[in-house]
Amino acid sequence: MAAITRIGRSPYSPTRGRIVAHAGVLTTVATATEKTPSVFDQACDALANIDRNLAEAGTNKSRIITVMVYIADMNDKPEFNRAWDEWVDRDNLPVRACLGVDLEGDDLVELVVTAALDS
Amino acid sequence: MAAITRIGRSPYSPTRGRIVAHAGVLTTVATATEKTPSVFDQACDALANIDRNLAEAGTNKSRIITVMVYIADMNDKPEFNRAWDEWVDRDNLPVRACLGVDLEGDDLVELVVTAALDS
Amino acid sequence: MAAITRIGRSPYSPTRGRIVAHAGVLTTVATATEKTPSVFDQACDALANIDRNLAEAGTNKSRIITVMVYIADMNDKPEFNRAWDEWVDRDNLPVRACLGVDLEGDDLVELVVTAALDS
Repeated sequence: MAAITRIGRSPYSPTRGRIVAHAGVLTTVATATEKTPSVFDQACDALANIDRNLAEAGTNKSRIITVMVYIADMNDKPEFNRAWDEWVDRDNLPVRACLGVDLEGDDLVELVVTAALDS
Repeated sequence: MAAITRIGRSPYSPTRGRIVAHAGVLTTVATATEKTPSVFDQACDALANIDRNLAEAGTNKSRIITVMVYIADMNDKPEFNRAWDEWVDRDNLPVRACLGVDLEGDDLVELVVTAALDS
Repeated sequence: MAAITRIGRSPYSPTRGRIVAHAGVLTTVATATEKTPSVFDQACDALANIDRNLAEAGTNKSRIITVMVYIADMNDKPEFNRAWDEWVDRDNLPVRACLGVDLEGDDLVELVVTAALDS
């Protein structure tokens, strides 16, 4: 029985995990901490939260497999992409899809990321 | 070549699977069986269908890795959360994202779940 | 440290991958190459792109685990399903969810697929 490692809780709910790892792969989710009206700022913020979650599990963005990007307004995609292009590891490109959906409250961006663990 | 185990079919189509397992991880999908206008009832129903699918594959909610929650109306999220909080294994919190999307017909909730197998 | 194999880039951006494989599982994403107004044609086109991506990684649709289908208009689901039914390997049914979301530009269909590798 392969172990499941559960690290942290969602900052928004005590009944949701923040990082779950199993069989060498972790999944983590993040939104922006600051719910500013700038999608670029929320994107940078959410991506930084992903970086922190990956670090907490002992890995980093060079080991990302997939990024699912959910944005509240598809017209914001160019601004999200600007943050992405600054952030992404160009030597280790993840598979990505970007979808326009309804998000909660003032969230403009939500990210679901899978990454390989380093050990 | 790692074996793929395919269990069951979607109750809605003969051309979609219900549970697929590979390398110790399964993915399963569920909606509510009864398409009532109560999102709480549909949430409980869909979560019970997930429980049944997990059991059919020899695992259970303590081994869930991720739950992607799709709801037809983001205003229903508190009601979904009420069902979630009653259902979730608080000692084994999954990573979760909840997104507002268009679902088919009278579906108010759709769930896509990954879980570790017990063997 | 399990190797990650990254194959190709998105035809739409130099900062997104097209196929990423790790631990015997790949993830790939596709839309239609031709952005025609027919969802059936876009569906066939996107599914053919998935087939090509799978072949490029040394696998094929008989080894698909999951297909997440994103369509721009839920009313198009029957037309998508028509393309799906012609395409799917009925002896190896994937788990599938189909969600209505906003897609970019003239995209009517986007697919995110996981599949087992053959080696």
